Amino acid sequence: KRHHSHATAPSVDISGIYPPIATPFTAKEDVDYKKLEENVQKYGKIPFKGLVVQGSNGEYPYLTEEEQVEVVKTVRRSLPADKLLIAGSGCESTRDTVQLTEKMAAAGADAVLVITPCFYKGKMDSRALIQHFTKVADSSPVPVVLYSVPANTGLDLPLDAVVHLSQHPNIVGCKESGGDITRIGLIVHKTKTQDFQVLAGSAGFLMAAYCVGAVGGVCALANVLGRELCELERLCLSGSWEEARVLQQRLIEPNTAVTRKLGVPALKEAMEWFGFHGGACRSPLQPLTEAEIQQLRRDFSSNGWL
Amino acid sequence: KRHHSHATAPSVDISGIYPPIATPFTAKEDVDYKKLEENVQKYGKIPFKGLVVQGSNGEYPYLTEEEQVEVVKTVRRSLPADKLLIAGSGCESTRDTVQLTEKMAAAGADAVLVITPCFYKGKMDSRALIQHFTKVADSSPVPVVLYSVPANTGLDLPLDAVVHLSQHPNIVGCKESGGDITRIGLIVHKTKTQDFQVLAGSAGFLMAAYCVGAVGGVCALANVLGRELCELERLCLSGSWEEARVLQQRLIEPNTAVTRKLGVPALKEAMEWFGFHGGACRSPLQPLTEAEIQQLRRDFSSNGWL
Amino acid sequence: KRHHSHATAPSVDISGIYPPIATPFTAKEDVDYKKLEENVQKYGKIPFKGLVVQGSNGEYPYLTEEEQVEVVKTVRRSLPADKLLIAGSGCESTRDTVQLTEKMAAAGADAVLVITPCFYKGKMDSRALIQHFTKVADSSPVPVVLYSVPANTGLDLPLDAVVHLSQHPNIVGCKESGGDITRIGLIVHKTKTQDFQVLAGSAGFLMAAYCVGAVGGVCALANVLGRELCELERLCLSGSWEEARVLQQRLIEPNTAVTRKLGVPALKEAMEWFGFHGGACRSPLQPLTEAEIQQLRRDFSSNGWL
Amino acid sequence: KRHHSHATAPSVDISGIYPPIATPFTAKEDVDYKKLEENVQKYGKIPFKGLVVQGSNGEYPYLTEEEQVEVVKTVRRSLPADKLLIAGSGCESTRDTVQLTEKMAAAGADAVLVITPCFYKGKMDSRALIQHFTKVADSSPVPVVLYSVPANTGLDLPLDAVVHLSQHPNIVGCKESGGDITRIGLIVHKTKTQDFQVLAGSAGFLMAAYCVGAVGGVCALANVLGRELCELERLCLSGSWEEARVLQQRLIEPNTAVTRKLGVPALKEAMEWFGFHGGACRSPLQPLTEAEIQQLRRDFSSNGWL
Repeated sequence: KRHHSHATAPSVDISGIYPPIATPFTAKEDVDYKKLEENVQKYGKIPFKGLVVQGSNGEYPYLTEEEQVEVVKTVRRSLPADKLLIAGSGCESTRDTVQLTEKMAAAGADAVLVITPCFYKGKMDSRALIQHFTKVADSSPVPVVLYSVPANTGLDLPLDAVVHLSQHPNIVGCKESGGDITRIGLIVHKTKTQDFQVLAGSAGFLMAAYCVGAVGGVCALANVLGRELCELERLCLSGSWEEARVLQQRLIEPNTAVTRKLGVPALKEAMEWFGFHGGACRSPLQPLTEAEIQQLRRDFSSNGWL
Repeated sequence: KRHHSHATAPSVDISGIYPPIATPFTAKEDVDYKKLEENVQKYGKIPFKGLVVQGSNGEYPYLTEEEQVEVVKTVRRSLPADKLLIAGSGCESTRDTVQLTEKMAAAGADAVLVITPCFYKGKMDSRALIQHFTKVADSSPVPVVLYSVPANTGLDLPLDAVVHLSQHPNIVGCKESGGDITRIGLIVHKTKTQDFQVLAGSAGFLMAAYCVGAVGGVCALANVLGRELCELERLCLSGSWEEARVLQQRLIEPNTAVTRKLGVPALKEAMEWFGFHGGACRSPLQPLTEAEIQQLRRDFSSNGWL
Repeated sequence: KRHHSHATAPSVDISGIYPPIATPFTAKEDVDYKKLEENVQKYGKIPFKGLVVQGSNGEYPYLTEEEQVEVVKTVRRSLPADKLLIAGSGCESTRDTVQLTEKMAAAGADAVLVITPCFYKGKMDSRALIQHFTKVADSSPVPVVLYSVPANTGLDLPLDAVVHLSQHPNIVGCKESGGDITRIGLIVHKTKTQDFQVLAGSAGFLMAAYCVGAVGGVCALANVLGRELCELERLCLSGSWEEARVLQQRLIEPNTAVTRKLGVPALKEAMEWFGFHGGACRSPLQPLTEAEIQQLRRDFSSNGWL
Repeated sequence: KRHHSHATAPSVDISGIYPPIATPFTAKEDVDYKKLEENVQKYGKIPFKGLVVQGSNGEYPYLTEEEQVEVVKTVRRSLPADKLLIAGSGCESTRDTVQLTEKMAAAGADAVLVITPCFYKGKMDSRALIQHFTKVADSSPVPVVLYSVPANTGLDLPLDAVVHLSQHPNIVGCKESGGDITRIGLIVHKTKTQDFQVLAGSAGFLMAAYCVGAVGGVCALANVLGRELCELERLCLSGSWEEARVLQQRLIEPNTAVTRKLGVPALKEAMEWFGFHGGACRSPLQPLTEAEIQQLRRDFSSNGWL
């Protein structure tokens, strides 16, 4: 595919580790661009491949379109030029997604991450989703990464749709957040003749994903333990599976805590512990209770991170 | 509650039947305001209590905010003054919902229908949802109707949250689309000391909902068979349960066809058969296949409607 | 159907209220036949249509086949002759179900209640289930009642299978425990030309089920508040819907408490409060905690039953 | 744990590959012990660690207890002495499980595989399940392997229960069929100070399971492609991850076909193609349709196995 690539969208190697960055807010729940910049500057010194902006952990559904674009511009300015910026641009309608994709590219995104539309779940079959992603990819000035995150959308991008879409010259890979390792292995297998890369969508199964053929990960936990996840990547790529396993196992509980168990408020709380700006979420996301903070702390400390 | 009502929001009796109106589009997928007006004029002659604008069947997640507001204005202009206009104003964030609620009121909505935020499902517990709806109701210039539609959101508004929120002077009722009749009966029971009204969210269980204490319905099928649903209401209210049962039973399959089974594209197809403007949906919603159209037709004809 | 009925199985009118009786155990977890008899004698004085033996609330999956049959014999001996005894006889395999059905009939069952096999959920489609129930009904000496209880089986008997099976001369009805009132209404509608009767499977939606055409109910709560459920039946049948609604609403929370929320241990606890033998369940079902007992008590007392 | 082991139950190393063997039937649906023996003799020549008898693929819920025991005896007689025989002995009640466990041990089982009881799903919390498995393990003459298979039971054995039970001297491991690789890694991590071994419950995630610390697999597909799965084990254990990945990927679709997609009837059909006795299932499991057989064939042939 790289040799027959889309005129306006040279392909890109997306392999590596990315934090899907959180969005800091002021006490009035406005975006705190200053704190955002400071986080990005710190992340710039970690051997990430790049950053994902406007992923689920960035509270993107709570930002206006203007804020979403401004956040991307801010990150691009603060991020070293050799780091990739992958921006979320998925909306419910195809036309909105096409437009936001263009804005994200103009704002400095190297690629876009496009979530499955999901409000009309019952109608989002392969036919609808293939058409949606094809139209978006056809018009996108930058490469497209498919994004399947059933915990938020209640929907898995069907395997046959992934395989079909992998043939599109401007679709370069997918982020798999469902954690079904059989599915991840099968996606790698069925797209192996394509120039298509699979990223794990969570740190909990990152090592297993490398094992079956994924090439990186977009991991909420990388906002907190970024160097450790890059070290896990290094161990997997160098075949140090025993050491990788030990490290992977210590990361599962902290990862579950900041994702499925306690969510974005916990991610932002833990970021504070490790020197980043986290802070409060926009409403209706609530601050953690004291009991939840203690639980979160235990999930890190019992694995030797605190 | 009516006697202690919110300064700027006199309470409102929402009992009755409402179609959650569909949004007609042009061939280019732009909103067709002309056809919308014509539909509203026809609906104005049916004994509906009013119209719901920007409900799930209106493809509201596919409209821009500007379009959402313009559609409400258009409907208000075309609708007889004695008909209620209830407008959807729910967004993912509390601040966006507060703002859109104000815009909807300014555009002519008599009340707003506020869907449960759902992207961060795991965090949308009673605490978060009570805070969300309370903030929205506190600032809304018009009464608020709670909206729980698990088929789209993957989330049921917890019963204890409904009961708590029913005490708010500016929250006048809820639309229950889940179809759990035990839950509907219990909501009526637990809110009976409040000025709180329950609307069935689908025609399939409308009679049963009246039976357990609901006072009306917001029914997709009312876009197609509006007079028949108003007749079902009349039969229930007059205690003609035997006749009501016969009519109710004939409505279940057509209702399921235009909702759970075939969705909004089927609703709009059937509208065409009955003299309304339906037409195509915005992408990624796809047109029905020929086989689906035949199935839809059978679901109406086998019950004597075609 | 009654006019063309199965040679060995004259049809039966199953309309009415039934408790699916609990099974009392001794301190050693053996069946306590003495206490069982005493319960049955008390139930015999309540205007039930009959009793269901070996339903989900009877802990039938925890009884050996010998115990299951012996319990049926014991109940038959203690029950007035004019009361129906409907016995559960469903097993995972068709051959086991055929055999147990014969044993139940021989033990005195007037009809059998046959649950959907469910271990191989993915394979239990309409084709498999139609074949299963048809074979069982073909050979059963007594009429068969279909039993769909998704909370336990993870499986709903597909509507088209119910409609197909309703034509069998030896299948007289179904027990619907899922609580989907739209489905119940549709089953009544699609089987109206057959001699087929629908029973509600829980007290929480009993009134609504009567409203849409069901003819009775098999209700766990009838083990505790049997007279009250028979009174609810009377109110529904006499068209006293307003009074029925008030009574129905007071029964929802107690019913939920002894079923979905706290299960069989709560049912047996509450039975003790109302003069019946309940007692402990077989392991692995655990006794209620003290907090659960208090919750259970509140669900009864707040509705005026304690 | 091995050094402090249960008096009557010396611990056992369960690492390795096992087919959960299918049960051949005659045309009349009786167990065909002759064909069973022939299958076992063939399996005896494959480098399996042993066989699992009465797992989900053995249609054990369709066998009488007498048949279940007789099948185990037959397998034991036909199986080389150095091969482990792990027999399913889980029933819904604790007392039945205790008794069947004893019978299985007496029939020649080296260990028992005990499935989670599941009929009363809502009550099967950690407290109930810990008590159940503890009682069974306390009295079992042979070591116990926990068995979590949510696709059949609708229930996952909670992680905290697994960790607690791993400390029991007579519980030696678990079979994880849910395929959640994060969970598998976490179980390995949280039980690493115990003498506790984790087996993958399906071939689709076998390599990933080895990667995160599992020590073997009980794989339906091993009934068909047993040597290939033993080769995959060898590649994983020898650190030949690249070769392992290629082999693993070719096994996913055949495995999905004989499990989740088409089930036991497909497993038995494919067994015939590879020289084993498969044949029909007991009713209500239906034979594959012609279209399903072709689909099954494609899933094998497109991966180079036919």
